[in-house]
Amino acid sequence: MGGAGLVTIDWGTTNRRIFALDGAGEVISREADALGVTAVRPGGFPGMMHALRATHGDRLFLLAGMIGSNRGWIEVPYLPCPVTLADLAEQLAWVEPGRTAIVPGACVSGTGRVDVMRGEEVQMLGAAAAGLVPPDAGLCHPGTHAKWAQLKGGALVDFRTVMTGELFALLRTHSILAAQMDRPVVDGEAFRDGVQHGFFERALTADLFGTRAQILLGRLQPQDAASYVSGLLIGADVAIGLEIVPAGPVALIGDPALTRLYGAALDHIGRDYREIDGEQAFLAGIRAIAEKLA
Amino acid sequence: MGGAGLVTIDWGTTNRRIFALDGAGEVISREADALGVTAVRPGGFPGMMHALRATHGDRLFLLAGMIGSNRGWIEVPYLPCPVTLADLAEQLAWVEPGRTAIVPGACVSGTGRVDVMRGEEVQMLGAAAAGLVPPDAGLCHPGTHAKWAQLKGGALVDFRTVMTGELFALLRTHSILAAQMDRPVVDGEAFRDGVQHGFFERALTADLFGTRAQILLGRLQPQDAASYVSGLLIGADVAIGLEIVPAGPVALIGDPALTRLYGAALDHIGRDYREIDGEQAFLAGIRAIAEKLA
Repeated sequence: MGGAGLVTIDWGTTNRRIFALDGAGEVISREADALGVTAVRPGGFPGMMHALRATHGDRLFLLAGMIGSNRGWIEVPYLPCPVTLADLAEQLAWVEPGRTAIVPGACVSGTGRVDVMRGEEVQMLGAAAAGLVPPDAGLCHPGTHAKWAQLKGGALVDFRTVMTGELFALLRTHSILAAQMDRPVVDGEAFRDGVQHGFFERALTADLFGTRAQILLGRLQPQDAASYVSGLLIGADVAIGLEIVPAGPVALIGDPALTRLYGAALDHIGRDYREIDGEQAFLAGIRAIAEKLA
Repeated sequence: MGGAGLVTIDWGTTNRRIFALDGAGEVISREADALGVTAVRPGGFPGMMHALRATHGDRLFLLAGMIGSNRGWIEVPYLPCPVTLADLAEQLAWVEPGRTAIVPGACVSGTGRVDVMRGEEVQMLGAAAAGLVPPDAGLCHPGTHAKWAQLKGGALVDFRTVMTGELFALLRTHSILAAQMDRPVVDGEAFRDGVQHGFFERALTADLFGTRAQILLGRLQPQDAASYVSGLLIGADVAIGLEIVPAGPVALIGDPALTRLYGAALDHIGRDYREIDGEQAFLAGIRAIAEKLA
């Protein structure tokens, strides 16, 4: 870390989290707001940085996440797996030379399946750098687009994205099931029944309509619909994700409300897991990148 | 058929089709409009029937479809499989005694998987009654909620619903893929590549995000996104449906734009199919029900 410390922003689509670190890498301030990249007008990022420097001083800024996408400040190329923290440090995109850099995302490319990630790579590689997971580990970051990843020797070697959170939101807001999906999701019998179907049957689009059929025929209480559908989607997600993480415990990183549900699903199918603090992992990744710049 | 003929309405959620038949069962008029059950105010059906009788005369009216649902005129219980046209005729719900009846829907119940259907049962059983399919046949009715069904000895013995059309509409209208899904779906390389993934991988929620990853990495042209996603969903649908129709040709009934795509998907995976005229099948089913009343 530089003597002056740094500021890092986990800058997502709809939200951002801002952390100021001192020269020893300790957090001296943290903020979160709704100024995700889609809330910023085109060309608005330099002005935003000016405001941020007025608050935090003229220090190194390291930005990660969707800020490096085609909806962000500039589009930073994805680094193909395997990717290490050293690779991210070497390939930083300096939007303000020597002062402000964007961390690149990662991709799976080659001749077969392809995938992309922006932001989670810092958390996942940071988890290993901080010793929160071993250098060879399987991770899952639930969310709008859940990410399952495999680390080997501390490098990100493969990952896969599952559109679980986005589909759940679409179904709850706009589908024929919307009226019944008005209760919070809880880990109970309906959720686990959904996990069972979603994980083992691999027939999600039929099971989704089955939710409605079960309600109409009195087999499912309407108030359990959100939990059942969440279970179906998470069960299907876990079935796909475990192809990326075939053995060992799954390290769950991210929003505790979500990691708890994924933990319940993994528990239901008899797979070990542990929950990892996403902020701690993110900051460890950023510190490691900053150290490689020194 | 009675000497005075009858009027039948295939009365769905958002549309209805009205056919007047003469005493010999020939169609003497056909209309379609957007007065589906959700366009009718609560308690509005008797007044609508009054208007229909003013147009068509005081004849027998047989109504099928969502008119018998909890959003329709009255909720008519589903008949559990196996279901025949004779069962439908015996269990008509007479909303205006001797004059207007609603055809019940069908359900799969019992201890395992459950499912429900309203309207397609008349078409499917009618297809067998008219000789459009043999008494033992596998059928698929694509749509918002695609229905796959098995007939044995002219009876509907099992079926399964897949939420394909609804999910496609949600993704095209509201998802992160919406901006790219603005072109019409065509049967081409992108569609068949989607079918291949959807049918064989059984990882739909990952393949949906994969659509975005492929576009970002230059592997899929944005203008092909709608066709690729349609292929994914129809491929997954066919994989589920063929568990209901394990052997023999699949009889595709319904909207020709959809049956053509399902035909292309079945062709891609090497399964025989034929396309059946849905109107002809529906009217054959209604005629057979009317004959059993005589």
